[in-house]
Amino acid sequence: MAAELSGEEVNMNYYEEALKVHGKTRGKIEVNSKVPLQTRDDLSIAYTPGVAEPCKKIFEDPEMVYKYTVKGNMVAVVSDGTAVLGLGNIGPQAAMPVMEGKAVLFKKFGGVDAFPICLDTADTEDIIRTVKAIAPGFGGINLEDIASPKCFEVEERLEKELDIPVFHDDQHGTAIVVTAALLNGLKVVRKKIDEIQVVLNGPGSAGTAIIKMLLAVGAKHIIACDEYGVLYTGRPHGIAGHKQMLCDITNLEGRQGMLADAVKGADVFIGVSVAGALTPKMVKSMNQDAIVFALANPTPEIMYDEAFAAGVKVMGTGRSDFPNQINNVLAFPGIFRGALDVHARNINYDMKVAAAHAIAELVSPEELAPDYIIPSPFDLRVAPYVAEQVAKAAVESGAAVNWRNVTEIKTP
Amino acid sequence: MAAELSGEEVNMNYYEEALKVHGKTRGKIEVNSKVPLQTRDDLSIAYTPGVAEPCKKIFEDPEMVYKYTVKGNMVAVVSDGTAVLGLGNIGPQAAMPVMEGKAVLFKKFGGVDAFPICLDTADTEDIIRTVKAIAPGFGGINLEDIASPKCFEVEERLEKELDIPVFHDDQHGTAIVVTAALLNGLKVVRKKIDEIQVVLNGPGSAGTAIIKMLLAVGAKHIIACDEYGVLYTGRPHGIAGHKQMLCDITNLEGRQGMLADAVKGADVFIGVSVAGALTPKMVKSMNQDAIVFALANPTPEIMYDEAFAAGVKVMGTGRSDFPNQINNVLAFPGIFRGALDVHARNINYDMKVAAAHAIAELVSPEELAPDYIIPSPFDLRVAPYVAEQVAKAAVESGAAVNWRNVTEIKTP
Repeated sequence: MAAELSGEEVNMNYYEEALKVHGKTRGKIEVNSKVPLQTRDDLSIAYTPGVAEPCKKIFEDPEMVYKYTVKGNMVAVVSDGTAVLGLGNIGPQAAMPVMEGKAVLFKKFGGVDAFPICLDTADTEDIIRTVKAIAPGFGGINLEDIASPKCFEVEERLEKELDIPVFHDDQHGTAIVVTAALLNGLKVVRKKIDEIQVVLNGPGSAGTAIIKMLLAVGAKHIIACDEYGVLYTGRPHGIAGHKQMLCDITNLEGRQGMLADAVKGADVFIGVSVAGALTPKMVKSMNQDAIVFALANPTPEIMYDEAFAAGVKVMGTGRSDFPNQINNVLAFPGIFRGALDVHARNINYDMKVAAAHAIAELVSPEELAPDYIIPSPFDLRVAPYVAEQVAKAAVESGAAVNWRNVTEIKTP
Repeated sequence: MAAELSGEEVNMNYYEEALKVHGKTRGKIEVNSKVPLQTRDDLSIAYTPGVAEPCKKIFEDPEMVYKYTVKGNMVAVVSDGTAVLGLGNIGPQAAMPVMEGKAVLFKKFGGVDAFPICLDTADTEDIIRTVKAIAPGFGGINLEDIASPKCFEVEERLEKELDIPVFHDDQHGTAIVVTAALLNGLKVVRKKIDEIQVVLNGPGSAGTAIIKMLLAVGAKHIIACDEYGVLYTGRPHGIAGHKQMLCDITNLEGRQGMLADAVKGADVFIGVSVAGALTPKMVKSMNQDAIVFALANPTPEIMYDEAFAAGVKVMGTGRSDFPNQINNVLAFPGIFRGALDVHARNINYDMKVAAAHAIAELVSPEELAPDYIIPSPFDLRVAPYVAEQVAKAAVESGAAVNWRNVTEIKTP
């Protein structure tokens, strides 16, 4: 309980301080010039008449847009505001602080320029059409806080219809960092990924992506649960859409029942659900040396102390006040840095898996411990190494040509 | 001829230098953080969990988006790339260098954050729909280099359908600066605006806006010419759309003929047309103390030396290598600065006229001369004074409430 109280106190201060900081600066980003504008000549080079020349070069050879404009380093952070943090459907204007926050993290950790685009529409086709219409000036699209299941179609269609990388961070960013944490957590408990039993609670956008990602790195036994219990084909409480798809790739033993049934004997619990979903009693029914990633925000599925008292060996949460913070910032800056540096056409599974391994590898065997399975979000080695490995995977998998323009990440 | 050659030499250097500069920096803008991101606490304030608090405040009261986000100082520079500089329809990617250039000028002169949005559509309805969809994060829309006559409907519709200022700079920016220059030019030649005969050659988007603006400040006698001669209702060579509208507000004497006929006895020639459109012979047929604004870029309707040899008293061009440069940068940064500072709902004629007078007033009676009727584009007094007068006009005309958040323009 001490940890919970302490966590809440800290959060209260963050809330007050956040209002002060946001109000003082009227938002968090600014658009600055990279070129001098002191003299008449400067103006004639940055604007008319000189500017006509790069325009002409791009008109003659569209690839030159990557040389003469910001496109190659500019990512749109796109949201319709329908699933913002734990706040839900608060709309595009109320989503702005989050998208601006994302933009500053892109710059800080990845040296990527990013700009918030909050959409005054929640319609799937409108979102797709709008993002396609504004794509010429962007080198990548980061989708953010778009409700499930709409987010699946938005991402899939944009991926197909645009020639720049499209990445839904709530899905894949989370999945990559969870995977990195699990790879290292399994080293701590000396279990093999293809032998463990995983229970995932909350198969929304993040949960679904985590399942696919774990299968991609070799997991064989995953059970998904929603509020009606284990997912299986023909469940009396209906199964449709992406949950039907999950029935096809999870729960190969055909188990049934509620979460409490599913976790019996499980090696790993991953929650992307609600506070308190995992009880100490459930934890006690898990296999020895259990790993628990309780990612509900701000209050996890089970609190840190309770989990350990019930026998958990390795625990991760989304919070900065406990060890092993599962934070997307470990993934998206390096992933886009790498993808942009090689002009990757998309961000494929090879690149995502490479990112997960890169994050995991930055915890050395000597450092690895139950309370240190994942680098800190402030570990500035992470983004450059993720970028390097993602770029390599992009070239090897054919998502990009064999070429890399390494962009040095300057830490402000 | 000396002036022309010298001008061309200078431009050649600008072109080469522009390629170098644009290629070296890969574009001209960057997105930076206004808040610190050095510690774990910084991250918890700029992003989760703290960021949830400004989100909630905006959800509760939408006006708070102006307090807690960048919206109130962020302008979208929107183009479909169909009428870029003198280059024409070069498309959205090739238009990027111009839109980035505009963004850096907004910041330099107006302290306004601006971001280029280049659209992969040239369809009027698509443009309108896209701009409306991305509007939540912007405090104003600057339309740029959109072909005529489409630009008229795009601006008019967006003005009606959005609650933030929409401004087509090619129309109104040019019109405001021309008006400012004319107001001062008339002082030099001691003529009254309601008595002069004005001939405008090239009634496209800029030309049409200039005509409306001059009427708004008191001009009574304006004749518009296109490549088929004077505009009048029933002209054998068809008249339609905005040109029909111009027939209703210009040429009240019902004159006919070609440009050479129209300029006979005229006091003022304004060209937004093509190089060489105004011949020395035509100038000689104008009234005494003629004023010529030859704005075709990069080569004006008549060259500076030729115009003076033919008897022009006051001349302005779009070029930086002649006196009296008619440059939009004198208008748009201050106009948006003023409109944003009072949260103006739109940019109405009162505000535009106020801007023209403000620009003109910055040339003192002592300084006023044939070769100094308009401040230099680098005169840093202009934008703050324009902003002040535009804000005042916005409040007085009801475009904004009686309130101003004066934003200091920091010159980088």
